[in-house]
Amino acid sequence: MSKKDYAKLAIEAHQKHKGKISIEPKMPLETKDDLSIAYTPGVAKPCEEIADDKEKAYSYTAKGNMVAVVSDGSAVLGLGNIGPEASLPVMEGKSVLFKKFANVDAFPIVLDTQDTDQIVQTVKMIAPGFGGINLEDISAPRCFEIERRLKEELNIPVFHDDQHGTAIVTLAGMYNAMRLTGKKLEDLYVVVNGSGAAGVAIVNLLFEAGVKDVVMCDSRGIIHKERTDLNDTKKRMAEITNKGHRTGQLKDAISGSDAFIGVSVPGVLTQDMVKTMNKDPMIFAMSNPIPEIMPEDAKAAGAAIVATGRSDFPNQINNVLAFPGIFRGALDARTTNLTTKMFITAAKAIADCVDDLSADKIIPSPFDERVAQQVAKSIKENKT
Amino acid sequence: MSKKDYAKLAIEAHQKHKGKISIEPKMPLETKDDLSIAYTPGVAKPCEEIADDKEKAYSYTAKGNMVAVVSDGSAVLGLGNIGPEASLPVMEGKSVLFKKFANVDAFPIVLDTQDTDQIVQTVKMIAPGFGGINLEDISAPRCFEIERRLKEELNIPVFHDDQHGTAIVTLAGMYNAMRLTGKKLEDLYVVVNGSGAAGVAIVNLLFEAGVKDVVMCDSRGIIHKERTDLNDTKKRMAEITNKGHRTGQLKDAISGSDAFIGVSVPGVLTQDMVKTMNKDPMIFAMSNPIPEIMPEDAKAAGAAIVATGRSDFPNQINNVLAFPGIFRGALDARTTNLTTKMFITAAKAIADCVDDLSADKIIPSPFDERVAQQVAKSIKENKT
Repeated sequence: MSKKDYAKLAIEAHQKHKGKISIEPKMPLETKDDLSIAYTPGVAKPCEEIADDKEKAYSYTAKGNMVAVVSDGSAVLGLGNIGPEASLPVMEGKSVLFKKFANVDAFPIVLDTQDTDQIVQTVKMIAPGFGGINLEDISAPRCFEIERRLKEELNIPVFHDDQHGTAIVTLAGMYNAMRLTGKKLEDLYVVVNGSGAAGVAIVNLLFEAGVKDVVMCDSRGIIHKERTDLNDTKKRMAEITNKGHRTGQLKDAISGSDAFIGVSVPGVLTQDMVKTMNKDPMIFAMSNPIPEIMPEDAKAAGAAIVATGRSDFPNQINNVLAFPGIFRGALDARTTNLTTKMFITAAKAIADCVDDLSADKIIPSPFDERVAQQVAKSIKENKT
Repeated sequence: MSKKDYAKLAIEAHQKHKGKISIEPKMPLETKDDLSIAYTPGVAKPCEEIADDKEKAYSYTAKGNMVAVVSDGSAVLGLGNIGPEASLPVMEGKSVLFKKFANVDAFPIVLDTQDTDQIVQTVKMIAPGFGGINLEDISAPRCFEIERRLKEELNIPVFHDDQHGTAIVTLAGMYNAMRLTGKKLEDLYVVVNGSGAAGVAIVNLLFEAGVKDVVMCDSRGIIHKERTDLNDTKKRMAEITNKGHRTGQLKDAISGSDAFIGVSVPGVLTQDMVKTMNKDPMIFAMSNPIPEIMPEDAKAAGAAIVATGRSDFPNQINNVLAFPGIFRGALDARTTNLTTKMFITAAKAIADCVDDLSADKIIPSPFDERVAQQVAKSIKENKT
């Protein structure tokens, strides 16, 4: 089925159902007694007990299983800054995936502001009703500060999926790529193209997982300390990456590399560049919907393994393998501290769910029910 | 079943179900194709169309049927200022009643602030995802300003249920009380005891419905222009009520009155006071759970008609008769302007749903399915 057909089918389905989420009662409401239990006068008792001990909100309300999917619509899919209303179909989609894959209740909150302080403030104001906050499609570098401040100020887990979800599933793919190529993370030279939320998180997680040599590129080329056009986030990345002191463009970064990880724009990786990479190059071309290089072109140029963000090619680096299990685990464990160790364990768990490992199968199916369970387990077991 | 039993049953049920609401998918998610339609790549198309025309959010998302039930937990049931977490069971209850009685999706938003500006700001920030805002259990006088400002600044309907829901159902009861007693609203002298959100809204709606003579009391007695302890709202009420220039306490207001409407505290209306009222006095003693006078006492003192807020006495003035239909109508009609005329028409429609009118049946059953439909019709037909 072509992409165009999905667009048409999506319009039809969204119009028919008027969106993707509905709010449904969990308690019976058929009799006067039912109302007296769910509402007045009975409801006063759970209210009173929670007033005495807020913790009981986790026993008597939906809070403990409820995640807010928060976006300002500033960096949506491949669509960019389309605003809150237009981001709703994505946020509702995220919400139903949470339910489908991990039985997490999730509700979209789209914000009529792109101001960092206002976003932080609004999320803090609405937090009492939620058990967790999933930040979504908020552009860099604001997303870093927003996540950091909310983690500091809220007593519920906060997770920016575009950063960590993408990084976890990318690392899962890397683990299986290591198995197939016989290489080791410690020995790799990796080029990450794209310095937005996902790129930064991927680099950070790769380092934590043992990779020693990474070069990052943005739209102006290699990120290095001599550049004068870097924001604070990129300055920090310049400090911790590029130990070979490379300068120039993507092509100057890519020669002699073992892996290319693209979270950037369509078509920027050429076959000529791939040919300059080390033996058995690994290409993660995750620009969506059009990758940095098409899989067939990458393979023709010698790529050993190719992953993309698309469901119609093999090896889809799909966040849905991470975020449902992450929150299932965080909610079950009541942890507010989502750590890098959890993310690495989760990546390994996702990698381990692939039974029939091959160059075209380094990532499990999104419908593999073990994945969310194993990811949740990674969170729970590493609770600090 | 005693109130105590409901408390116990409510705790058990809330604990068993972990609250009352769940988020459920409306689109299938079983196959890879399903995901490609509900999420990437298909979802990009509805996003793009909404980005071009925000109005299409009403076609492609749940926004058009989604109401936020917003509270700061400052004036919850008879419980007072119990804060956001403790108000959640009530807001979830409200949400499921919306679904049950009018197929409106409603989601509780409880706020970690009781500051007027912050409440207004937060609701504005999250408004893009909602088709309407139901304000709930926010204490007076802040509730008046919050509702006014949100109505001015948002392009979706805003409705403070504690004010207008209570006023509508009270007026419905009054219409049927008129039928039974043969009195006319224009000729009544009405005492409203309690000057919070509900009291103020009831007085305003009674005037609009034709009542000419009302005295309001607060905890310090009759509200009149000579009092120096009145806030702005009460000052305004002193201007428009009390044409007989009464002063003193409730007992001084009540003598010679046709109707008592209590939205105050338990037990303040005595049998001796009822005996000073006009022929066929009507008593709406809506303090919850303990009324201003118990129905049997009021009747023994000569009351012709007694209504309360309780489900275990006849004539329950229950907001659930109003708010689901109000929002069903407002959402269907896409009106942002909820008018007094709509409320009066809705009150008449509720009154007309009582088939077997009697002193103990001036209000329809909350399970009467015609009620929400007729209330919704009142909104739609009076759209301006």
